[in-house]
Amino acid sequence: MKSTILADRAQGMEKTILRQIVDLADASCINLGLGELSFPPPKAVTEELSREIGRWPLGYTSNAGLPELRALIAARSGMEIDADRVCVTAGSEEAIFLTLAVLVNPGDEVLIPDPGFSSYPKIVRLWGGVPISYGFDRANRFALQTERIEAVLTSKTKAVILNSPNNPSGTVYARDELQRLAAVLNDRGITAISDEVYKEIFFGETSPASISRWAPTAVVVDSLSKSYAMTGWRLGWCIVPPQLVKPIIGVHQLAVTCASTVSQRAALIALGGGAEDEKRRNVEELRRRRGLALGCLRNTLGLPLIEPAGSFYILVDVSSWQARWGSSLDIAVRLASEHKVITIPGIAFGPGGEGYLRLSFAGTPEDFAEGVRRISCLLA
Amino acid sequence: MKSTILADRAQGMEKTILRQIVDLADASCINLGLGELSFPPPKAVTEELSREIGRWPLGYTSNAGLPELRALIAARSGMEIDADRVCVTAGSEEAIFLTLAVLVNPGDEVLIPDPGFSSYPKIVRLWGGVPISYGFDRANRFALQTERIEAVLTSKTKAVILNSPNNPSGTVYARDELQRLAAVLNDRGITAISDEVYKEIFFGETSPASISRWAPTAVVVDSLSKSYAMTGWRLGWCIVPPQLVKPIIGVHQLAVTCASTVSQRAALIALGGGAEDEKRRNVEELRRRRGLALGCLRNTLGLPLIEPAGSFYILVDVSSWQARWGSSLDIAVRLASEHKVITIPGIAFGPGGEGYLRLSFAGTPEDFAEGVRRISCLLA
Repeated sequence: MKSTILADRAQGMEKTILRQIVDLADASCINLGLGELSFPPPKAVTEELSREIGRWPLGYTSNAGLPELRALIAARSGMEIDADRVCVTAGSEEAIFLTLAVLVNPGDEVLIPDPGFSSYPKIVRLWGGVPISYGFDRANRFALQTERIEAVLTSKTKAVILNSPNNPSGTVYARDELQRLAAVLNDRGITAISDEVYKEIFFGETSPASISRWAPTAVVVDSLSKSYAMTGWRLGWCIVPPQLVKPIIGVHQLAVTCASTVSQRAALIALGGGAEDEKRRNVEELRRRRGLALGCLRNTLGLPLIEPAGSFYILVDVSSWQARWGSSLDIAVRLASEHKVITIPGIAFGPGGEGYLRLSFAGTPEDFAEGVRRISCLLA
Repeated sequence: MKSTILADRAQGMEKTILRQIVDLADASCINLGLGELSFPPPKAVTEELSREIGRWPLGYTSNAGLPELRALIAARSGMEIDADRVCVTAGSEEAIFLTLAVLVNPGDEVLIPDPGFSSYPKIVRLWGGVPISYGFDRANRFALQTERIEAVLTSKTKAVILNSPNNPSGTVYARDELQRLAAVLNDRGITAISDEVYKEIFFGETSPASISRWAPTAVVVDSLSKSYAMTGWRLGWCIVPPQLVKPIIGVHQLAVTCASTVSQRAALIALGGGAEDEKRRNVEELRRRRGLALGCLRNTLGLPLIEPAGSFYILVDVSSWQARWGSSLDIAVRLASEHKVITIPGIAFGPGGEGYLRLSFAGTPEDFAEGVRRISCLLA
């Protein structure tokens, strides 16, 4: 018998929680839900593009990307790898999408962070896999704990998605914990998928560690989006172990042929060094905004919160409001519709995020302060 | 038990026939395998982009694309549809990829043209479907014949992929045949997926017809790539029936988030009218190149061939050479490695293409003539 018109995997592609909130927004809203920086793309990129666009060859590139871009990404990775292990993608989400496509058979389990980026479980399900959540040490700023991952490993576990700095908690996973986890995964032949898109946005002394240093079969996912304020350019990449190179490029070819050639050219400029100063200034500015945001939250709301070590999000603990205002979703809906401020309810990132709101300090400090003032209306 | 590292769908993602040939190419080769025009992108696009890139907001767009771009595509479609039936994609291949994702359950059959674009069967298989080939009237320039499609319809047939003008045959499907086919598919609730990327490149009096005129549930796929010589920009779209809108956008979001914002801005310029004159000149130039190419082939090779009504390909019948030189693949490999001319063997498009070579006249007439001279070495 022919099935109904929609494939099973396409059933229930309804609005996400995030979308529900964003759809409540109007022009009068302050948006603290932002997932992108308010900075423009680097001047070096737009200026060179402006000068050279008429001279560049802008046809198809190789499916895996311009050879010189793959080489540059490999050289900057700190991983001592050949360029042929790099696949340039239409943003980091495609990189995760492709990685799961080539790893996941129906019924395979993939461990996902809870709270974590809401697309992870959906992509796992799209490929027929079963997303299994692992939690964090909430008492310790959502720190990674290898035992929590070990506790949910089964013979069906195919991969573990890691995201450090983490969205939404801003946690940077500890070096020794990643090393410990790598040993466990190596032992069992489980692939680590390390989503490192926030790795250049950190506020501590040392840059976030990558599990790839200890896990030779790890897949590393990164992009221009957050580091270079270039979200709309859809330019990401994955660095994959040798046995995944051909399959990843094969699925990538069927999905999008190649990443935008214009964006690949822009990546050559950004990653080639032209945008480093601007990126550093942006991170410094974010550090300033983070300080202002934390001060503002403490002064205005006085609620517990997670001080982020990376990313541009702060989780604010609103559990003390729940008796009066309901779930994090109820609170976010009320804030958006009645008080004209967009926040992301923690539940959007999984049950582990319940009781929190995620606030972004990627926008201006003035907007942040006004947004928090609006949130404070619920204090009354 | 955990399966081996690679998912089943990722097994056998080996080199395509096309890639095998292209990998034989070196700088001394003439490339008659080209799948893209030798023209630059429209001046209107690069000039406005050059002026405005620093002023455009270049963050994420809505997943389905900029509202004004969706509206423009809807208005130009001639289909009397609302903008919300348009999903802007990272090229037309993503549009086909998404459409099959939301339609195909494991075991569902999808009819594909033979000869036809080599990615069709691969995408069908990637989503667990079974590609079933349908042939054409070879005696009549590979004309579409509804009976050939009817002959392979089963209770499992979910969709039929159409491609007019056709790659590789250059055939434009006849209006009355499309109307007849639409009636058959409507009756059975089968979705037509109409890949119309070559629709602006035609050499007859009237523009190619679209089955969407008679099949209200058809999915129409198009892009900037061939019409505007903008392959590397990865900007395509699909127009889908109402019940597919949410699922398509849902999978699109998980695959790439949104199409490149820079490319979407470029599309607004190109489709907004700024590039129409240049497009018309390009098609006129292609008409000239087609005439020169046909003359050259007749004078130099004297083989039967399919005069294309659209696209920029010519199928040359080399079956009379097969006793001496082997299959179309053998011939193409010999031409690439010994005579330094790249051609695409018909078998790359399916068994229905065997006995032919596909030659592209998208490059310069001088290159075409030199390429054909090299092919003629096999005449000796």
